[in-house]
Amino acid sequence: MEDKVEKRFFTYGKPPEEQILENGLKLGPITIAYETHGQLNANGDNAILICHAFSGDSHVAGYYSEDKQSEKPGWWDFMVGPGKGIDTDRYFVICPNLLGSCMGSTGPASINPATGKPYGLNFPMVTIGDMVDAQKKLITHLGIKKLLSVIGGSVGGMQVLEWCVRYPDMVRSAIPIATTMRHSALAIAFNEVARQAIMADPFWNKGDYYDGKGPDLGLSVARMIGHVTYLSDEAMRRRFGRNLQNKKDFSFNFEADFQVESYLRYQGSKFVKRFDANSLLYITKAADYFDLVDNVNTEENLQDLCGSKSKFLVISYSSDWLYPTYQLKELVQALKRTGQDVSFCEIEADCGHDAFLVADDRLSNLIRGFLHGL
Amino acid sequence: MEDKVEKRFFTYGKPPEEQILENGLKLGPITIAYETHGQLNANGDNAILICHAFSGDSHVAGYYSEDKQSEKPGWWDFMVGPGKGIDTDRYFVICPNLLGSCMGSTGPASINPATGKPYGLNFPMVTIGDMVDAQKKLITHLGIKKLLSVIGGSVGGMQVLEWCVRYPDMVRSAIPIATTMRHSALAIAFNEVARQAIMADPFWNKGDYYDGKGPDLGLSVARMIGHVTYLSDEAMRRRFGRNLQNKKDFSFNFEADFQVESYLRYQGSKFVKRFDANSLLYITKAADYFDLVDNVNTEENLQDLCGSKSKFLVISYSSDWLYPTYQLKELVQALKRTGQDVSFCEIEADCGHDAFLVADDRLSNLIRGFLHGL
Repeated sequence: MEDKVEKRFFTYGKPPEEQILENGLKLGPITIAYETHGQLNANGDNAILICHAFSGDSHVAGYYSEDKQSEKPGWWDFMVGPGKGIDTDRYFVICPNLLGSCMGSTGPASINPATGKPYGLNFPMVTIGDMVDAQKKLITHLGIKKLLSVIGGSVGGMQVLEWCVRYPDMVRSAIPIATTMRHSALAIAFNEVARQAIMADPFWNKGDYYDGKGPDLGLSVARMIGHVTYLSDEAMRRRFGRNLQNKKDFSFNFEADFQVESYLRYQGSKFVKRFDANSLLYITKAADYFDLVDNVNTEENLQDLCGSKSKFLVISYSSDWLYPTYQLKELVQALKRTGQDVSFCEIEADCGHDAFLVADDRLSNLIRGFLHGL
Repeated sequence: MEDKVEKRFFTYGKPPEEQILENGLKLGPITIAYETHGQLNANGDNAILICHAFSGDSHVAGYYSEDKQSEKPGWWDFMVGPGKGIDTDRYFVICPNLLGSCMGSTGPASINPATGKPYGLNFPMVTIGDMVDAQKKLITHLGIKKLLSVIGGSVGGMQVLEWCVRYPDMVRSAIPIATTMRHSALAIAFNEVARQAIMADPFWNKGDYYDGKGPDLGLSVARMIGHVTYLSDEAMRRRFGRNLQNKKDFSFNFEADFQVESYLRYQGSKFVKRFDANSLLYITKAADYFDLVDNVNTEENLQDLCGSKSKFLVISYSSDWLYPTYQLKELVQALKRTGQDVSFCEIEADCGHDAFLVADDRLSNLIRGFLHGL
């Protein structure tokens, strides 16, 4: 049975009960946009939390309206639904938009109650841990004491791992996908260049642009950088190679001669229409700060993970060069050293980091099998 | 004996004898800045042409002044000099600044004789072939009929290969290093993002900025992108890891927390002081257009290469992900299919694409041995 898909909102932390952030600052009220699929069972033990990636949103599956022709389904529609890898006939699925984003949850574009204007750079820095704290508020609000599984890819995978550290007793299993225990210098470098592209745009105006034109060109360049990292050398060769856009000769000017140039320009300009530049700054910084082990002191942290008695399914992609397999193997080894029950799978795929967003029976079957085995 | 190092200039192509470019347009007069080391021998058969990479210049070795404390030596000083890998006691070395650059040779910042103002985007698109044509004019001007070797890395390596195609009878041997037969979609993608970063800067002003403030912020972002591609995941882990700039806690703002962020910002701002944004646009486009085989029709091209009876030493670096070893192996196979005398070496190094610019006895010894064997 398919559910009616709608964007819901949960608000908490009205002063004086603001959320205390990792940097010591207070933030509130906080609204978290979310979507649910399926039904929570009587025992309350079939809930699965899905954490989206950096530019994702709460719309994980299905359609908002009856008119399926004119709208795109949720971002993981091939995975989440009746009979699918995450079977909504069996599980109650929750997908919240992350704190700091611009897709319904509180972020830098939200109104700062202290000023009546958008926060801009007055929005406090939020960490992956702060995002998870917000999700925990939502989960508790929904009457869930323990999650059957927490699942997510990329920045979503960081949230999965952070859940295991912060709330080990609330996590029965975890599926981190195409992610890392900590951002490498290379990943930080790409994020920093993207941030600089935005901050170089005079329309960024130190984050204060909500009453006029925003840093569209800078945001577009930032997204182009992102897209290069989401693909792979192989994926780009296969999809674009050196194919020309107009199958004629070179333009001998600065038009987009090659299809890969047109693709990147299109991705950049499309992103500008749906995403807030300041949210990109905040979320990339949260990802750069993320360090599963260092944040909480190596041994204690791993003891926490160990104490949680979670089952882990760790998944990497062979052509992911943003979070390469060697980094996922480090995670697996760290978990195993603490006696966790860990399965690991590297999926052979040439489409790079974004592979987990591409329909693939291998991923669906892995997740289905793991969940059924719980 | 060390030479007095000075920047020389050669001008040709005064109207009506302009150079006809690959796109059919005319360009002239053209000035090429160059540097020489050593002496051309009586037979004129000891000349070596060194082709610099995209942002390099003619200052390949030594010092301009006696004051070695206050200036940096040429960019390949560890390789070029008396007794070094390219021994200037034996060889006559020429290094020209490439056409389209901004280091003394004619490029978009040069004065357009038709208007009396800098060319800007009125500068015609030049290809790697056009650059090589300009170098050939210089070599002929210097009285050289045949080069003992043509040597270069990265975009310099493309020029090396183009020499073998355009002027096979003038090339006795060739050493292409850390380069490719054609730009991959990934390499084009990085260049396109760099170009877009410049063109997104309002101070770029469609290339017309020479009488005021230029696109410094855009150029800085473009250079940051470049530097990410010149390093490697391993190199960045080793050099920067997650080290913090100030060894304290996170700033929880958008300052440069990590050393890798500071490094990139520094490289970006340093580049702005010495390089012209329009030259970056033109040279990256020339690199993107470069395709050794397609440009001249596969079989004929390889026949040309074959006809040249050159000896080749092809060198790749194990951690170069801009021009990975597999691309150099494709070159080696293409050359071998036409019966060329090809040696190939992959140097194990974790410092990425830029490895050929880092002093390394292995590279010096390889080149020395190859040249002595001619």
